[in-house]
Amino acid sequence: MKKIIRNGTIVTASETYQADILIANGKIVSIGKQIIEKGAEEVDATGRYVFPGGIDPHTHLEMPFGGTVTKDDFETGTIAAAFGGTTSVIDFCLTEKGKPLSQAIKTWHDKSKDKSVIDYSFHLMISEINDRVLEQLPEVIDQEGITSFKVFMAYKNVFQADDETLYRTLLAAKELGALVMVHAENGDVIEYLTKDALQKGQTEPIYHALTRPPEVEGEATGRAAQLAGLASSQLYVVHVSCKEAADKIAEARSKGFDIHGETCPQYLVLDQTYLEKPNFEGAKYVWSPPLREKWNQDALWNALRTGQLETIGSDQCSFDFVGQKDLGRDDFTKIPNGGPMIEDRFSILFSEGVLKGRISLNQFVDITSTKAAKLFGLFPNKGTISVGADADLVIFNPTSKRTISAETHHMAVDYNAFEGMEVTGEAESVFVRGEFVIKNKQFVGTPGSGKYMKRAKYGEMMTVSDQVDTVRSE
Amino acid sequence: MKKIIRNGTIVTASETYQADILIANGKIVSIGKQIIEKGAEEVDATGRYVFPGGIDPHTHLEMPFGGTVTKDDFETGTIAAAFGGTTSVIDFCLTEKGKPLSQAIKTWHDKSKDKSVIDYSFHLMISEINDRVLEQLPEVIDQEGITSFKVFMAYKNVFQADDETLYRTLLAAKELGALVMVHAENGDVIEYLTKDALQKGQTEPIYHALTRPPEVEGEATGRAAQLAGLASSQLYVVHVSCKEAADKIAEARSKGFDIHGETCPQYLVLDQTYLEKPNFEGAKYVWSPPLREKWNQDALWNALRTGQLETIGSDQCSFDFVGQKDLGRDDFTKIPNGGPMIEDRFSILFSEGVLKGRISLNQFVDITSTKAAKLFGLFPNKGTISVGADADLVIFNPTSKRTISAETHHMAVDYNAFEGMEVTGEAESVFVRGEFVIKNKQFVGTPGSGKYMKRAKYGEMMTVSDQVDTVRSE
Amino acid sequence: MKKIIRNGTIVTASETYQADILIANGKIVSIGKQIIEKGAEEVDATGRYVFPGGIDPHTHLEMPFGGTVTKDDFETGTIAAAFGGTTSVIDFCLTEKGKPLSQAIKTWHDKSKDKSVIDYSFHLMISEINDRVLEQLPEVIDQEGITSFKVFMAYKNVFQADDETLYRTLLAAKELGALVMVHAENGDVIEYLTKDALQKGQTEPIYHALTRPPEVEGEATGRAAQLAGLASSQLYVVHVSCKEAADKIAEARSKGFDIHGETCPQYLVLDQTYLEKPNFEGAKYVWSPPLREKWNQDALWNALRTGQLETIGSDQCSFDFVGQKDLGRDDFTKIPNGGPMIEDRFSILFSEGVLKGRISLNQFVDITSTKAAKLFGLFPNKGTISVGADADLVIFNPTSKRTISAETHHMAVDYNAFEGMEVTGEAESVFVRGEFVIKNKQFVGTPGSGKYMKRAKYGEMMTVSDQVDTVRSE
Amino acid sequence: MKKIIRNGTIVTASETYQADILIANGKIVSIGKQIIEKGAEEVDATGRYVFPGGIDPHTHLEMPFGGTVTKDDFETGTIAAAFGGTTSVIDFCLTEKGKPLSQAIKTWHDKSKDKSVIDYSFHLMISEINDRVLEQLPEVIDQEGITSFKVFMAYKNVFQADDETLYRTLLAAKELGALVMVHAENGDVIEYLTKDALQKGQTEPIYHALTRPPEVEGEATGRAAQLAGLASSQLYVVHVSCKEAADKIAEARSKGFDIHGETCPQYLVLDQTYLEKPNFEGAKYVWSPPLREKWNQDALWNALRTGQLETIGSDQCSFDFVGQKDLGRDDFTKIPNGGPMIEDRFSILFSEGVLKGRISLNQFVDITSTKAAKLFGLFPNKGTISVGADADLVIFNPTSKRTISAETHHMAVDYNAFEGMEVTGEAESVFVRGEFVIKNKQFVGTPGSGKYMKRAKYGEMMTVSDQVDTVRSE
Repeated sequence: MKKIIRNGTIVTASETYQADILIANGKIVSIGKQIIEKGAEEVDATGRYVFPGGIDPHTHLEMPFGGTVTKDDFETGTIAAAFGGTTSVIDFCLTEKGKPLSQAIKTWHDKSKDKSVIDYSFHLMISEINDRVLEQLPEVIDQEGITSFKVFMAYKNVFQADDETLYRTLLAAKELGALVMVHAENGDVIEYLTKDALQKGQTEPIYHALTRPPEVEGEATGRAAQLAGLASSQLYVVHVSCKEAADKIAEARSKGFDIHGETCPQYLVLDQTYLEKPNFEGAKYVWSPPLREKWNQDALWNALRTGQLETIGSDQCSFDFVGQKDLGRDDFTKIPNGGPMIEDRFSILFSEGVLKGRISLNQFVDITSTKAAKLFGLFPNKGTISVGADADLVIFNPTSKRTISAETHHMAVDYNAFEGMEVTGEAESVFVRGEFVIKNKQFVGTPGSGKYMKRAKYGEMMTVSDQVDTVRSE
Repeated sequence: MKKIIRNGTIVTASETYQADILIANGKIVSIGKQIIEKGAEEVDATGRYVFPGGIDPHTHLEMPFGGTVTKDDFETGTIAAAFGGTTSVIDFCLTEKGKPLSQAIKTWHDKSKDKSVIDYSFHLMISEINDRVLEQLPEVIDQEGITSFKVFMAYKNVFQADDETLYRTLLAAKELGALVMVHAENGDVIEYLTKDALQKGQTEPIYHALTRPPEVEGEATGRAAQLAGLASSQLYVVHVSCKEAADKIAEARSKGFDIHGETCPQYLVLDQTYLEKPNFEGAKYVWSPPLREKWNQDALWNALRTGQLETIGSDQCSFDFVGQKDLGRDDFTKIPNGGPMIEDRFSILFSEGVLKGRISLNQFVDITSTKAAKLFGLFPNKGTISVGADADLVIFNPTSKRTISAETHHMAVDYNAFEGMEVTGEAESVFVRGEFVIKNKQFVGTPGSGKYMKRAKYGEMMTVSDQVDTVRSE
Repeated sequence: MKKIIRNGTIVTASETYQADILIANGKIVSIGKQIIEKGAEEVDATGRYVFPGGIDPHTHLEMPFGGTVTKDDFETGTIAAAFGGTTSVIDFCLTEKGKPLSQAIKTWHDKSKDKSVIDYSFHLMISEINDRVLEQLPEVIDQEGITSFKVFMAYKNVFQADDETLYRTLLAAKELGALVMVHAENGDVIEYLTKDALQKGQTEPIYHALTRPPEVEGEATGRAAQLAGLASSQLYVVHVSCKEAADKIAEARSKGFDIHGETCPQYLVLDQTYLEKPNFEGAKYVWSPPLREKWNQDALWNALRTGQLETIGSDQCSFDFVGQKDLGRDDFTKIPNGGPMIEDRFSILFSEGVLKGRISLNQFVDITSTKAAKLFGLFPNKGTISVGADADLVIFNPTSKRTISAETHHMAVDYNAFEGMEVTGEAESVFVRGEFVIKNKQFVGTPGSGKYMKRAKYGEMMTVSDQVDTVRSE
Repeated sequence: MKKIIRNGTIVTASETYQADILIANGKIVSIGKQIIEKGAEEVDATGRYVFPGGIDPHTHLEMPFGGTVTKDDFETGTIAAAFGGTTSVIDFCLTEKGKPLSQAIKTWHDKSKDKSVIDYSFHLMISEINDRVLEQLPEVIDQEGITSFKVFMAYKNVFQADDETLYRTLLAAKELGALVMVHAENGDVIEYLTKDALQKGQTEPIYHALTRPPEVEGEATGRAAQLAGLASSQLYVVHVSCKEAADKIAEARSKGFDIHGETCPQYLVLDQTYLEKPNFEGAKYVWSPPLREKWNQDALWNALRTGQLETIGSDQCSFDFVGQKDLGRDDFTKIPNGGPMIEDRFSILFSEGVLKGRISLNQFVDITSTKAAKLFGLFPNKGTISVGADADLVIFNPTSKRTISAETHHMAVDYNAFEGMEVTGEAESVFVRGEFVIKNKQFVGTPGSGKYMKRAKYGEMMTVSDQVDTVRSE
């Protein structure tokens, strides 16, 4: 059934204007003044922004980690995402050395296919590089449309890859048209610092932060950037948490390297002191990289404003405080790393970013949606409000206020990192391919209705008309 | 009369998609698939890009300089601009110490009003700051919609203002909502170097470049940026020619300063060796700042790609080779500074930038149009293809090849700096507020049809709906 | 009469060892173990350091400023200097536009010749550059041995020179073999900020600091460095007060520019909060550049440690609190700039620098003496303990503690900026050319015994043996 | 027997003056004018410089490498060193995982004790860190006086240590008072690049350079510096070959990190094109890191001049062209890395550095001798000409010219990397502890006369008088 979203203020990564949007067959077919279309369902957006649906390029749904599994799966996680204005997620598919990549990907398909209420895709973790792996990669790209590979520089003896693996992944990605993502922390130094802390009886959550200082993130970020530059390849640094790392990215970009950086909501508004909350509450704020000293926040906002950081991921990786986080009550290294963030990504960036004048409204759209679509091969189906694109849309009330709380959030987890924080601006209705998933703040979607998205190669657009064949999408 | 631009690939600063555009009353009223509108004139854009009309933020039309006057006036200049895909220009209104600003502005209105074939506005030169000048500025902004002030750090004893004047202009601009523009070269050092060169008998055009080395531009750029940061004001550095200056802008931006940089086509493709052409031909390539060593070009392209430089101005300032440039045959300081550039700005950036993979297609639009619209208070009427905006549009053939030549160009001047250069991509039809100015490569406009544009204050949008009142346009 | 300084620990800019020193005819003639020399006066230095006498490259004795005159003249000033371990000073000879340089120099000779108890020389202020001035400079260098020129970038409408003057001075200095010194603050911006502050009724001493922020020093330092680099000349930046300026010097040095930086004791241990002392006491701490936020101190110490800053001047410029500083009680701009510092330069650097591990003992000597001797053409007569050098020596007790106070200091001024501060290490005896000036903490010198020092050209040593003719002294 | 070195120009790291030196019992006992000492042997040094004997902190004598052994052993190597003005070497003692450190040290004592003609000491390679190794280190320092540890970041699967090992070594060194040295190249990336080159049939010597690009050295240098800063420890980067690495050291120093850098003669005067010499001659120029593009040389010289690089090691590691280098005729990875350099270190630095105005004479002494003595715990016995120091002296003719050639050099190897190069300045006589080793260009020493030097801990001086106990030697 056709729909008309009437009279909203449409915002894209570069435009802001008032118009109606006509949707048919899940696509935007027309944008205009006072559109007339018989039989179309009318949706009033007066006094509202209409944004492209958010794209969260960094989630870990139903992911095994440290002997437990993240609390939110593709059903609860994507419902929460939808409430927060997100209409696509790209989740990390973990792999194991020696096992076929296809097996790992199948596992991820199994986790997601009957559950997701929004569209989704996968990044592929690279745990090793050898001839066997290299042989499988073209199929991963061509058949599965997985065009981004993740390498860990941390978690020694678990996920950590050595520099040779990273370098070869960069070379392979360049050849195949994929984007290499890195978790940039020096796992070797962390390994020593954590063992040393435990040996000294330093077991509280704050030691999680103190054993992963900004220097180890800055170092690894600079190293990855240097390797990417040397390989003339492309790099995406996930979850940049501090000035030290943001500076390395900016420096590499100024040399002409093709490097991109993502930060997360938590690093923009929370800080290291949260890890010192009493009664083990600090465990709720255990991310890797950890929260930093507050002054880093200005540097991160400025990097977003000047385009040196380009996207915002949730790094959704939720664990209950009771029953999961408390595995680490006597040993901070046993606290599952990560937190619930998929639902509030939009709100935080709008309320703290746009309304406080740190970024423009168009930058908000670029950061939460458009840039991710372009970097990860979803554009122009996703990440845009334009004729022909999927009607993934958010009707957003910019003046509505709400208080974030675990009592009202939709994630499956028993706490919220922003508990009690008041934010302004709220997604009221959310459409995926033209269908309501959220309607007037109520979930009306269907698990399994989300579609798996095959993605275009790095630097290519999904849909290209003849004459744009020769140009880069970003 | 209504028009439908049918089947083009619409490109904005963030979007690329195929659709039809319906124009009525000079505005875009609808964008959609297979628009049906009776009586509308059909314009076929199949296989063509449709771009927002270019905005050239830096022209000097009919400007007196060094005892002569620039060759192109608002008629020939804007016709040439239109041929090149440009639909708005912002020209520099010169002022004199001690004279009322309104008088200078009136002079510029007189020059332009019956001549311009595209829309136009003015920047105001600040030659002095005192109570009398400060009293006049609010009127300049409110009545004339002139929201950008230009300060010269060069041309000692002619245009050059001292640092106190620059600093006070920055403070006044912050208070009033204007953007300060600087010509950043250290005029004191240049004064000495030129006198010294002449004394040594170094009179050829190449000495123009050698007496204005990159260091003097880098120094002045850094100084202006530092003053802007100290004043917490906003700054726009015109015609950045070299890595040294681009680096200063990037450094200031990384500190959170609100600084913006423009470069020009000539700095991206020509270099210092052109000044050494025999038979005084070097005089054709005399700009200030001068052309630089070739390696600087990579740095400028990279700065555009990473957003550290944001716009491209033509610095159109044309003088005939015969009769004007040759005033300096025996003394390079008497060569009128500047060149004809208003017509080829788009072509150069598309052919050398987009087609060579240095910038994306969306960045092309941002750089040639959208960003200038936002910085100079023309957005969202100008600089965008969106419902409600002025139908300033360019139908662009991305595969058409042409050879640039003075024989075929439309500027009134007797040479072209890119003579003989082949470029790919050409504006075929150009609309200003829905009317053809160029139709199938023929001029069909009318002198005087261009409108004077009052501009919004810095950081505000021209047209704001209620809910966007509180947000920044950039 | 001969002297033997027995058994001290001799420290030079590179060496530390125990030995005896034999002095004859004002010169060091031998250094050895258990020197035997009949009839020589024995001076015991057991348990003491023997340092080369300090060289203070930056003093303003009996200098007219703002309608008053600095309190210490060449008699009281040099006596205080001697108490503090300093055996040579280089004072600034002020000039006036349009007047012969020789007249200014004669004035300075008249002030000093019958008064100084230690050796002295002059820097020459450059207030203008024109043919007449350029004609006089060779004589200044050759006859007077004045091989350093000072240019002010601040004090608009008083001392301030424009960039053309600075640039021409740099070129003249390169040709003539002189070192250009700059007071690096942007006087234009300061001019506005001070007028603006006064207009707002901000008259207290703290506004002295707030109207000369680090940005104006950083900017001017960078500008001077850039000009020096462009001129391939040599530059010495006096009284560097903040990280912003120190960074500019380091950056210029890394490019290969011949740039040198001096800091002062006050910037290493006092900070901006001193200007907020009640009852107008803040006036005692009014220097230009002003004291900075405390965190700058670490940056300055580190710059000394890594050799990016090379010398320490006192910027001695003393005014009584009562009767002079209080000229500015109702208007901070009328507070005479400067303070009494000539006496405590050594103590501060030793106690706060060496004993706190921030610099080595050899660096202490280099910074307080050797480097200045080399940069200003006094080496190897001065600035060293070596055979053949002038016996300018300090016997220094490194463990003696004293409390700095105006009650006990030897300057003619009624307050001390370090009042109440305890320092460790004290000059016990001081020799100038082999004669006691201070003997066991008592002054035993004679006004007028100090000699005027003609200095070698920049980059040349005073005394050169044949084979070192071709090498640089620094 | 006593000696008097008569009438030379004595040069130290800070002083230059003419005097006589009296030597007794291997020590300098007096320095003075016209020293009279009955029975002393007179050595005329008129018209000569007298330098402290050179200290070469980086040699590999009789070292097994890649299935062969370096050609020069402690006899031929130290004889050649002496000819070149070097009186002390510090050689690298290799260790093996799992074997007692004492055993490795014993091996090195065995290699050297009856052979060395000059004084010598050892650095200890750290191949692993575990409790067993940590237990042995105090003894290594206290008994053997080995206060510097070497960690390799390159040579994967051979010497390469991981970052955890490096970090723990830095922590151990801080606690124990040792200096950590790193070979800074990213061995992982090199591993891939070399395998890849061979696979492509790229076997010539030039590929040695192309598979170890400056980026891998810059990256590893930055990483080591970052780790040292985080550990608040001390670091010495050996054989810095390029601007990229030198910049990382400067940047770390500017942050206050305790980091020191060494370069080598080959990087200052040879460049990458040497590796392309025909007939496999490029193999003679195979060092790791490799020779770089020529423009890096300016950066290295400037870093020496500004003190950002502090020492010069020979990295002596000689292999015959015939019989050793040619092991790699068909595979550049089999070319033994290194070259003969111990003899010409002084000459190159004097002729190319001092005489060409790139460094001062005093800096020459600091770089070739004094700084190494201070950093490695040999000062003030070594590295200085001062009373009480060992009489390790060089009588140097600064005007003598010679042509470097394998035919005349004293190393045991069949080629010289500087073959045919004319240098000015030559060591004529060399003394170790007062005894001639070289006398009028003839070797007169005795194998086995060189003594093993136990070294002081980092930051402490070997001989300290009471009052200097509390201060840092550097």
